[in-house]
Amino acid sequence: MKKIEHLGIAVKDIKQANALYEKLLGVPPYKQEEVSSESVITSFFKVGESKIELLASTNEEGPIGKFIAKKGEGIHHVAFDVDDIEAELTRLEKEGFQLINKTPKPGADNKLVAFIHPKTTNGVLVELCQERTKE
Amino acid sequence: MKKIEHLGIAVKDIKQANALYEKLLGVPPYKQEEVSSESVITSFFKVGESKIELLASTNEEGPIGKFIAKKGEGIHHVAFDVDDIEAELTRLEKEGFQLINKTPKPGADNKLVAFIHPKTTNGVLVELCQERTKE
Repeated sequence: MKKIEHLGIAVKDIKQANALYEKLLGVPPYKQEEVSSESVITSFFKVGESKIELLASTNEEGPIGKFIAKKGEGIHHVAFDVDDIEAELTRLEKEGFQLINKTPKPGADNKLVAFIHPKTTNGVLVELCQERTKE
Repeated sequence: MKKIEHLGIAVKDIKQANALYEKLLGVPPYKQEEVSSESVITSFFKVGESKIELLASTNEEGPIGKFIAKKGEGIHHVAFDVDDIEAELTRLEKEGFQLINKTPKPGADNKLVAFIHPKTTNGVLVELCQERTKE
């Protein structure tokens, strides 16, 4: 794992949260992006080498909608940057981690992503991210 | 906020969690430290410019013991590195954030720290950290 790529925070209202995190972090979001396959609108802030990703659901049945209904707003996941996501998934599965995604899928911000189940990481939803090469 | 200084993860068993995060992150913890004022044993891993801080309670009545009893293991807080913690606390209070600590207190890993209440940050417990100058 090279760095914390981003920290994902589940919020109800992306406009309210954008304004609040701009005050907190002292910088505006550099990007907003909808990921329709995940039913979310995402918003990104740079903090050092990492990002804060706000996630608001477009649909109560989506993963963020369900998370907020169960647990309320708050930190949803941590994502780590890796060079070779397929090799890392193979390594982690051998080490006993339970993969939610056995093969990487397209995520926000031009990444290939895969999640590890929180029941094998002390309750933490872990995402692996690899920058997608331009086609 | 200069960078994510660390991500704090509440765990039940520091030995189990140390072994697991060593496998996940690919590096061993570089430091373990008890903060008796907070009733916690902490363990630190480097990931890029940030750290992962595991927190295990030494006491069911301590803040981490209570957190785990209520929510289970998982991400407890995010800490941001700042140059001048007192100036940041003054700025954030003026911006409407509710401070848990109006003045900084000594934390783990040679830091001065202060927390912001999650009810004014979309459910996220935010810590500010400033490196303590050597005496």
